[in-house]
Amino acid sequence: MATHRFRPTRYFSVIGAAEPCLRVADGDTVVTDTIDASGLDAREIAVGSRPNPMTGPFYIEGAEPGDTLAVHIDRLTPSRATGWTYSPLALTVLEPAAIKDRPSSERHVWEIDGEAGTVRLREPVRGLEDFSPPLQPMIGCFGVAPAGGQALSTATSAQNGGNMDYRLFAPGTTAWFPVSVPGALFYLGDGHACQGDGEIVGTGIETSFEMEVTFRVLKRTISWPRGETADDIFTIGNARPLDQALQHATTEMSRWLGEDYGLDARAASHLMGQVVRYDVGNVFNPAFTVACRIAKRWLTKL
Amino acid sequence: MATHRFRPTRYFSVIGAAEPCLRVADGDTVVTDTIDASGLDAREIAVGSRPNPMTGPFYIEGAEPGDTLAVHIDRLTPSRATGWTYSPLALTVLEPAAIKDRPSSERHVWEIDGEAGTVRLREPVRGLEDFSPPLQPMIGCFGVAPAGGQALSTATSAQNGGNMDYRLFAPGTTAWFPVSVPGALFYLGDGHACQGDGEIVGTGIETSFEMEVTFRVLKRTISWPRGETADDIFTIGNARPLDQALQHATTEMSRWLGEDYGLDARAASHLMGQVVRYDVGNVFNPAFTVACRIAKRWLTKL
Amino acid sequence: MATHRFRPTRYFSVIGAAEPCLRVADGDTVVTDTIDASGLDAREIAVGSRPNPMTGPFYIEGAEPGDTLAVHIDRLTPSRATGWTYSPLALTVLEPAAIKDRPSSERHVWEIDGEAGTVRLREPVRGLEDFSPPLQPMIGCFGVAPAGGQALSTATSAQNGGNMDYRLFAPGTTAWFPVSVPGALFYLGDGHACQGDGEIVGTGIETSFEMEVTFRVLKRTISWPRGETADDIFTIGNARPLDQALQHATTEMSRWLGEDYGLDARAASHLMGQVVRYDVGNVFNPAFTVACRIAKRWLTKL
Amino acid sequence: MATHRFRPTRYFSVIGAAEPCLRVADGDTVVTDTIDASGLDAREIAVGSRPNPMTGPFYIEGAEPGDTLAVHIDRLTPSRATGWTYSPLALTVLEPAAIKDRPSSERHVWEIDGEAGTVRLREPVRGLEDFSPPLQPMIGCFGVAPAGGQALSTATSAQNGGNMDYRLFAPGTTAWFPVSVPGALFYLGDGHACQGDGEIVGTGIETSFEMEVTFRVLKRTISWPRGETADDIFTIGNARPLDQALQHATTEMSRWLGEDYGLDARAASHLMGQVVRYDVGNVFNPAFTVACRIAKRWLTKL
Repeated sequence: MATHRFRPTRYFSVIGAAEPCLRVADGDTVVTDTIDASGLDAREIAVGSRPNPMTGPFYIEGAEPGDTLAVHIDRLTPSRATGWTYSPLALTVLEPAAIKDRPSSERHVWEIDGEAGTVRLREPVRGLEDFSPPLQPMIGCFGVAPAGGQALSTATSAQNGGNMDYRLFAPGTTAWFPVSVPGALFYLGDGHACQGDGEIVGTGIETSFEMEVTFRVLKRTISWPRGETADDIFTIGNARPLDQALQHATTEMSRWLGEDYGLDARAASHLMGQVVRYDVGNVFNPAFTVACRIAKRWLTKL
Repeated sequence: MATHRFRPTRYFSVIGAAEPCLRVADGDTVVTDTIDASGLDAREIAVGSRPNPMTGPFYIEGAEPGDTLAVHIDRLTPSRATGWTYSPLALTVLEPAAIKDRPSSERHVWEIDGEAGTVRLREPVRGLEDFSPPLQPMIGCFGVAPAGGQALSTATSAQNGGNMDYRLFAPGTTAWFPVSVPGALFYLGDGHACQGDGEIVGTGIETSFEMEVTFRVLKRTISWPRGETADDIFTIGNARPLDQALQHATTEMSRWLGEDYGLDARAASHLMGQVVRYDVGNVFNPAFTVACRIAKRWLTKL
Repeated sequence: MATHRFRPTRYFSVIGAAEPCLRVADGDTVVTDTIDASGLDAREIAVGSRPNPMTGPFYIEGAEPGDTLAVHIDRLTPSRATGWTYSPLALTVLEPAAIKDRPSSERHVWEIDGEAGTVRLREPVRGLEDFSPPLQPMIGCFGVAPAGGQALSTATSAQNGGNMDYRLFAPGTTAWFPVSVPGALFYLGDGHACQGDGEIVGTGIETSFEMEVTFRVLKRTISWPRGETADDIFTIGNARPLDQALQHATTEMSRWLGEDYGLDARAASHLMGQVVRYDVGNVFNPAFTVACRIAKRWLTKL
Repeated sequence: MATHRFRPTRYFSVIGAAEPCLRVADGDTVVTDTIDASGLDAREIAVGSRPNPMTGPFYIEGAEPGDTLAVHIDRLTPSRATGWTYSPLALTVLEPAAIKDRPSSERHVWEIDGEAGTVRLREPVRGLEDFSPPLQPMIGCFGVAPAGGQALSTATSAQNGGNMDYRLFAPGTTAWFPVSVPGALFYLGDGHACQGDGEIVGTGIETSFEMEVTFRVLKRTISWPRGETADDIFTIGNARPLDQALQHATTEMSRWLGEDYGLDARAASHLMGQVVRYDVGNVFNPAFTVACRIAKRWLTKL
């Protein structure tokens, strides 16, 4: 149960089978640095390049194809006092007829106040002078090497995870990924200080982080990423259109309820039909992300 | 500000320009009965037919094309002690490869305990013996006559509302609809005792209701349904695929933030980018429903 | 086998259960006038209004719900020497990122030369001085009253037909529609002098026509429109996205091959897998249209 | 202008930046062997593995990022007398409600008669005893290394080409690919003896081939694959849903008409609006393929 402090010197914009940066044991914790989506580090120096340069890959001993890698997000600490977003709304979330009048794309700086636990536009726009939503760190992009020798852009996501931009990938959450190569080869980065549903401006508040995660290898097989927070369990589908992402997430949840909670397809449908929640991770990236979520209070009695 | 008690004798499975069942004034309240999605009334007698037989249409005096009809949902009281759902999960939410193993479609009865405020399967399935989610009444289908002489099936939804199956159309919520004909011609029905996101078993817990709503005519124009709860404002898009429904809802929210909160497109994107929430009303009907939602606490300072 | 010459005095922008304009017998022929998509008649006088004002409805004696109405397109003769289109490409066929630079929408007049059998822009644009594609008349919008009391806008299409904008609905083609009301209630209009696949400028070359069609009632049931030309049979799906329209058309073709050609699902798949053709009727209207087409030469030996 | 005879000894199921198997000059011709989609060679021995094992990559001297690689398909000769398909229709082309009754998936052998120029099921099913469509060889999967260090599965396709399964990638056609790495790194394989639109049984008639292609490096930049046959030019979009694939293809065609034929966006829309044709390459793979096609006879006068 060692804790490793890893300082990256190179970054990856594809998730594939690169040479591991570090080998760790099942149960170990890694504390490491991530740079922002455009490659700026804690000093705002460009040390990586778009899209979403990743720290990693970490080789987790004992992880074999067919296993599941559980990644507990212990801590996400912004490593600088500013982040950035784009405006206005992304092309993917506007009616096509509204695109003509869309203002030009701009980059904006946000101040991150770790003590107050808030973020704030450095140059507030009219009407948002008092707008300071909470600092809610999350991981935008993380996952494991995909199957079959693929190397997938960190702009997108798939069954192995990737750029899902889901705000519940936050401290306290455990994420599960299906392992396709020995050692799993885990990457992480693209931290956001805050983000609404859908990543609808094309970014969260992008900044560098110190991230701490703890690995566990599960001898079980899953098809899509899964997660657990203090209150919920959830499954993830990554695809276009949203309909297909939702189908993957829903089908995976039904499987999970069968595997771990003893519900057959009919029983699972009764439960899900009344209490399921859907979240849109992102509706911006090449693959969209939908989470299918169920509160654990409905599962404790099972 | 009169209150009308209306007892329907006929029901409609299209929303169009039928003869009004009652004329009411701007500000009036209507208390009326609705039957369930299959046409069963409070005594479980079939008095209407699928899909979603509607009570109405109500003619609201003063409502003109281009106006907005605000409908406050005062109260939704189930008028019998049982409702029903289907199982298993709908074809629209499963991976196509999982359809082959889907159990056959069945109808199930739920008991509605108004005192305890819960619902419960009459014949619990294994693993759900203790499953009794809260009674959370909502309106599955309501809206106003569409433009251009159309008569739209209550199976689907469009800019005029219809079968949106969104669980926040609940007591305390005010819904807004764009008026296309004199008097608006408002219909309502398809009450659910409970329903998760997406109406993913093809139904909520379908039952008959006594519904109380209060009308107000707004001299303003909207493009898609909007709503307000104690905590949130939201906009609705109805279309396939989900992507398009989300585009309508998002674009309408951006317009709303401009009209009522003084935010231009760039400012609206900053707010929405960090705090927006998306809900899936239904991913079952011919048109899917997505809500774009913002907590009112972000708007109070504007 | 009478031939009726019908001169319309009113037009419809919804397809529903309106009072018949004429009752005809099974086997009869109707010669009638249609006006263009914006309501201009043969003299270019506005006598109807958008969208796609229809001539009809014709009541075909003997047609009952569950039957099929076969409509042979005998002749489509433009009734004036000009038509019009829009430019540029529609929002639905452009990458969202290309919409920003899209020129403004304009209306253009085309000259129709019936003798030469060509069409030509009245004011040619640079590079198209010699562009004169053939006059290829087709029916943009036609169909029968839908089920359940619906009245559907002539902007869209569904199982009952409607605004499909498919270029093989041309002279010599027989179209089949599923009958939902007594008499079928057939409407037609929205003639195009020419149109490529997809109706990607949002119009064909819109003009008024004299149309001649012959009706036959078939005592058989279909789910989606079907058609037969000299060379092909085809089925139509109308939905969004294109994927769903294609699923409807493909499934309907598989059914047809079973019903009329003795091929079970596996045999139909062998045939379709090697020789099927897909056409995009329109990718512009609220519902998109895909045709699944098979050359009759593959069917003659069956 | 050398001709190289290359005999592969290893195959690739991702298209990425592997070590070149051969370096050739701009203008050179390569004659090589490809194995079928499941890895069977001319002797039906398994020498590669799914999905779609590729021959290559070929390094074309002078090709630089931003260039275009033109690949003329000189000849496609099946190297054995049998191929195989699946049945029945794929899940992607059926209405979800029809999936339940879909027969189980089976593999079928087809006999390839090179002299007669036909293909035929080895064990004909009832109704198809005389079904022998023409031998129409095509390349299912080919393309160049993608940008950014990605390695993309040969199951799918993207801007760099890949598994497009478009039947006009046939002898006589020239295909263009956007070059992202020095030498382009061209792969090819997955030959089909015949295939209808959409690859709707999940395969063409899969067999091994001797393929002959000739390379040319063009100092111009394109965004999506393009092609030219004796009669047509076409552009390709690869994405889900079909709508998005069609948008890419259409936008790319509009650009091409501007670059090479002097048509601005408005003129291009006039031409395309009247004469464009859409083909569905595949509606089976992870990314669907749509071709936007224009007959060259409309372009000769420009």
